[in-house]
Amino acid sequence: MAGRQAVKAYLDLVSQACRAVLIFLKHNKIPHTVENIAIRKGQHKTPEFTKLNPMQKLPVLEDNGFVLTESDAILKYLCAVLCTTGPPYVPDHWYPKLPEKRARVDEYTAWNHANTHTSSIFLHEIGFDMWLVDMTFQAKLERAGYAVKVELKLKSFKILSRLFQSLCGGRDILKDRPKLLSWRSRVQSVLSDSFDEAHSAVYQIRDKFTAKLSPCSKQATL
Amino acid sequence: MAGRQAVKAYLDLVSQACRAVLIFLKHNKIPHTVENIAIRKGQHKTPEFTKLNPMQKLPVLEDNGFVLTESDAILKYLCAVLCTTGPPYVPDHWYPKLPEKRARVDEYTAWNHANTHTSSIFLHEIGFDMWLVDMTFQAKLERAGYAVKVELKLKSFKILSRLFQSLCGGRDILKDRPKLLSWRSRVQSVLSDSFDEAHSAVYQIRDKFTAKLSPCSKQATL
Repeated sequence: MAGRQAVKAYLDLVSQACRAVLIFLKHNKIPHTVENIAIRKGQHKTPEFTKLNPMQKLPVLEDNGFVLTESDAILKYLCAVLCTTGPPYVPDHWYPKLPEKRARVDEYTAWNHANTHTSSIFLHEIGFDMWLVDMTFQAKLERAGYAVKVELKLKSFKILSRLFQSLCGGRDILKDRPKLLSWRSRVQSVLSDSFDEAHSAVYQIRDKFTAKLSPCSKQATL
Repeated sequence: MAGRQAVKAYLDLVSQACRAVLIFLKHNKIPHTVENIAIRKGQHKTPEFTKLNPMQKLPVLEDNGFVLTESDAILKYLCAVLCTTGPPYVPDHWYPKLPEKRARVDEYTAWNHANTHTSSIFLHEIGFDMWLVDMTFQAKLERAGYAVKVELKLKSFKILSRLFQSLCGGRDILKDRPKLLSWRSRVQSVLSDSFDEAHSAVYQIRDKFTAKLSPCSKQATL
């Protein structure tokens, strides 16, 4: 963003949507500052933050006075702005301009909203079962597997970020799925440091909650 | 789509997502054919349809061999293709090219996925309470009200289509909300015939279920 101010991202890295935004900013070397908003402390409900986002949700992006919410919209906006006003330029493969290719990303991000929230697994692990109402987890993963036959695009990137959410509960939901494991390794390897940095909060929660899980719960097959 | 084949839309007008696609096609005079897939008869689960969309969901668009699912992606794809290869051209206001304006639509459509499913009201009316778990309906509408301060854009259009879903249960959820009612009238008036045509299935279901509702349920304030 030559000649432009750094963007400002309001994040809590406990949220997969926030991690997706941070990884994207870091990986593409987009000048940015981060303001940490701790959800557990209710900092997303203060009058100041509510003024910024009346929905009281994270992440929020601020770009020279333009305030945007929803991680999908934020990632697509960054692609749109930085494909024309870089450097740094965001490579086209993240969100291709060709309508047919772009439609595949939009198709996945729309589908993703309803179908790959693995935070449900995390909530299940720590005692909230009510979230698992719509389909079996196996079916979810099969659907996820169907969706992840692509290179490093927004959709691949976002599903990875979601699938990692389950690590909070100490469970690696991909451990017996060699194809998905291999895909995760490829994406992780390309994203390298920015990935682990964004996931540090998840790793901490995993370590904290793993200790609380019963042996039965740990061994259960989802 | 001069020189192009008409697109083919697989729809069941009981679904708001399908109605959104049909209204968009009709209102913008996009040459199209419709193949009706009756969900209640399980026609979305036949081997033929599953080959077309392994997710077994509607709507599906077919454009000269390119198969696309998810109404959000379909609407945005039609905007992208028909802004360059019309006539007919889809006016820019539906999905503006300016990144800041486009981001507002993407922001809303992302948010919409989680927050304005009024089919939950319909399901509640006919006996399935479990869907109303996350927030009160009043809060949902306030949020919807916050979101609908725009002209006729994809987001305004999609939320209208969603809010109409509740009519299936014989309840007009906007009846005591003058601002939202006025907005609905404006959008309905612009969309005219294509709107009522797409909603004929909803009106029929409303008439059928209204007869089944108890007086108590009819008078309840959500």
